Amino acid sequence: MSTVTSLIDKYYNADTFPRSLGIELLELAPGYARMAMTINKNMTNFHGIGHGGAIFTLADTALGLASNSRGDTAVALAITINYLKPARIGMQLIAEAREEHLTRHTGLYRINIASSEGETIAVAQGTVYRMDKKG
Amino acid sequence: MSTVTSLIDKYYNADTFPRSLGIELLELAPGYARMAMTINKNMTNFHGIGHGGAIFTLADTALGLASNSRGDTAVALAITINYLKPARIGMQLIAEAREEHLTRHTGLYRINIASSEGETIAVAQGTVYRMDKKG
Amino acid sequence: MSTVTSLIDKYYNADTFPRSLGIELLELAPGYARMAMTINKNMTNFHGIGHGGAIFTLADTALGLASNSRGDTAVALAITINYLKPARIGMQLIAEAREEHLTRHTGLYRINIASSEGETIAVAQGTVYRMDKKG
Amino acid sequence: MSTVTSLIDKYYNADTFPRSLGIELLELAPGYARMAMTINKNMTNFHGIGHGGAIFTLADTALGLASNSRGDTAVALAITINYLKPARIGMQLIAEAREEHLTRHTGLYRINIASSEGETIAVAQGTVYRMDKKG
Repeated sequence: MSTVTSLIDKYYNADTFPRSLGIELLELAPGYARMAMTINKNMTNFHGIGHGGAIFTLADTALGLASNSRGDTAVALAITINYLKPARIGMQLIAEAREEHLTRHTGLYRINIASSEGETIAVAQGTVYRMDKKG
Repeated sequence: MSTVTSLIDKYYNADTFPRSLGIELLELAPGYARMAMTINKNMTNFHGIGHGGAIFTLADTALGLASNSRGDTAVALAITINYLKPARIGMQLIAEAREEHLTRHTGLYRINIASSEGETIAVAQGTVYRMDKKG
Repeated sequence: MSTVTSLIDKYYNADTFPRSLGIELLELAPGYARMAMTINKNMTNFHGIGHGGAIFTLADTALGLASNSRGDTAVALAITINYLKPARIGMQLIAEAREEHLTRHTGLYRINIASSEGETIAVAQGTVYRMDKKG
Repeated sequence: MSTVTSLIDKYYNADTFPRSLGIELLELAPGYARMAMTINKNMTNFHGIGHGGAIFTLADTALGLASNSRGDTAVALAITINYLKPARIGMQLIAEAREEHLTRHTGLYRINIASSEGETIAVAQGTVYRMDKKG
């Protein structure tokens, strides 16, 4: 059985793209992850606000850690994101991914993305496929 | 009426986050955009393949250009992405965003993300809200 | 300003398709609706369980009432439903639609569909477009 | 190996809810189904047009037949529908479900819902989970 520490080594430390964006892990538990990212001036779109891809990356990263946190390999099949408010430069975003449902082969996760003041910026939900254990 | 050249200046050249990932504009027309991105070693997840957030960013960028290509401001409300195959390091991805439907206030776009060999990696669809013209 | 009673006349009593399925209104408030439907033997699919279309209809009906409950006309643009557990014949389903976000022109709603024992059967989220008031 | 005729008996003839709405099967092939439904006055919402649940039921029924057409059992995990135009009373709708991707355990289908004159009314996409064969 993996410990949370070894999961952090295996998943968070090896998650190259999110780390390049400064995404931090705040909390990890079975079926749950909470992560943070600050929108900097390299993460904007042509409207001058946080790019949808950067916000999605934070959500997807939290989903990836939450859904792999039980030690089995899970991959995202489908994710829907709803954008509610713009994320301005300098804003710290917190994503919380929670498991809503789990079967042997599939899982459903809901991700809330809010500013550190608690204002919801986006919500997402993702369906994952859980691969068979190799042994 | 904006020309394609001025649209490129206004949108693509000002799209900071995608440019930081090396995303290139291949073609832009009203309601349509085609863009390319090569998965490099900084864009991977803990499985060692292209991160879902990087692939989504390419799709979202193509959606943003296609939906703003008519000169009005459009913002994404909801996007669903389906991941079909892993994108390996070194793979060049091509995203094509096409307008499926347009009303005065909303639009629907479909985005296909394929390898340069034509293998579909992911598909997405996005609903945008078109803001009123300022003048 | 419409009263809840007149909203029920205007919306629930005129909602022909849901009424043909026996869908009942349990509670209506601004941005909120709770409705019930019992899966009967005419609502099954070829697996002998509640058809996805019947379950969706309950969710969509709750979304329609919740999003029109403020007196303005709202129409659904995009809805995503996730099916979690089968609904068996005779099961009473309760759908609760809650407003998660509202702007002048758009709204986001989350719908939970559970058995009367509280077991979640499906979850959905819908984006609506709010039309301009006529006067 | 099942023949198309036995699939029609097993699936379409046993699909109780769609049959109660008069949904007809026009064509069935591996990974593909085309079906028809006419919006009648019992299928409307409080706006007096075809209810989103009735339109979704047509789409979901086509998805169910297409995804089960290979002889294995498939169940929908997540479906997203985008409504583009109202469906008026008397309008015949044609839904075409096509397989976009298939792995051993999952499948992605795209469903187009159009009037018999070819005007697109809604589009949907569904992710299914394919259960293991029993033998």
